[in-house]
Amino acid sequence: MIETNYTIEPIGFIRSALTRREAAPRQGFEGAPDAWLEINATVVEGLEGIAAGDEIILITWLHQADRDLLKVRPRRDPNRPLTGVFATRSPHRPNPLGLHRVRVLEIAGNRLKVEPLEAMDGTPIVDIKPVLPQSADS
Amino acid sequence: MIETNYTIEPIGFIRSALTRREAAPRQGFEGAPDAWLEINATVVEGLEGIAAGDEIILITWLHQADRDLLKVRPRRDPNRPLTGVFATRSPHRPNPLGLHRVRVLEIAGNRLKVEPLEAMDGTPIVDIKPVLPQSADS
Repeated sequence: MIETNYTIEPIGFIRSALTRREAAPRQGFEGAPDAWLEINATVVEGLEGIAAGDEIILITWLHQADRDLLKVRPRRDPNRPLTGVFATRSPHRPNPLGLHRVRVLEIAGNRLKVEPLEAMDGTPIVDIKPVLPQSADS
Repeated sequence: MIETNYTIEPIGFIRSALTRREAAPRQGFEGAPDAWLEINATVVEGLEGIAAGDEIILITWLHQADRDLLKVRPRRDPNRPLTGVFATRSPHRPNPLGLHRVRVLEIAGNRLKVEPLEAMDGTPIVDIKPVLPQSADS
């Protein structure tokens, strides 16, 4: 087995009114607020082509997650069975990547206002991708 | 600005008939074949709850990408303007994460057969997530 590690560097950070994990909704469509994406000056050129109104996929690094957990009870519901983390959207997983589909409301220099976003203030952003019109995915 | 790096570790690797980059389709829905996901024994417990027929989101690390490119011509089309990488699905980007929506065809121990998958043989897998039925996203 090839044992290789890779280094991931934040391209920016989330600025949000959500500052407490307990107050954050589980998913964006569950009543999450808007938030600002503050993109590092070194990579801001990579935003060219994104416009207000676009839907984008945001990938975050959930830096407070427990990377050793392999099973969780979905939505912390004690009545649900222990489930493998790859079958859930739990933040706890070996590589704690968060996936968020949001709409761009406004662009101001290196800052993008988006909604809805359930990730907390200070969460590192690691990638942004367009939603592909040809497929339902992202 | 907080300058923090994170370490990402493959949870497995793609085994595919696609071994040459030139032969790989750009997106899964553009005629990509099926492939096997070979998951490391250390994290195989995290797969529990995934079943044949499920749609999953696969996140890969596109290890051959150029991480310094911030603008590309989409689909390498010389007639298209230079576009910021975050407005494209180019593999070239600061953190070369690939996002793939696939269907699970078969599960055999630590191996999952999925389709369609445009990523090449040997590509590191870094995360697997369920598609959320409540939202159109991923």
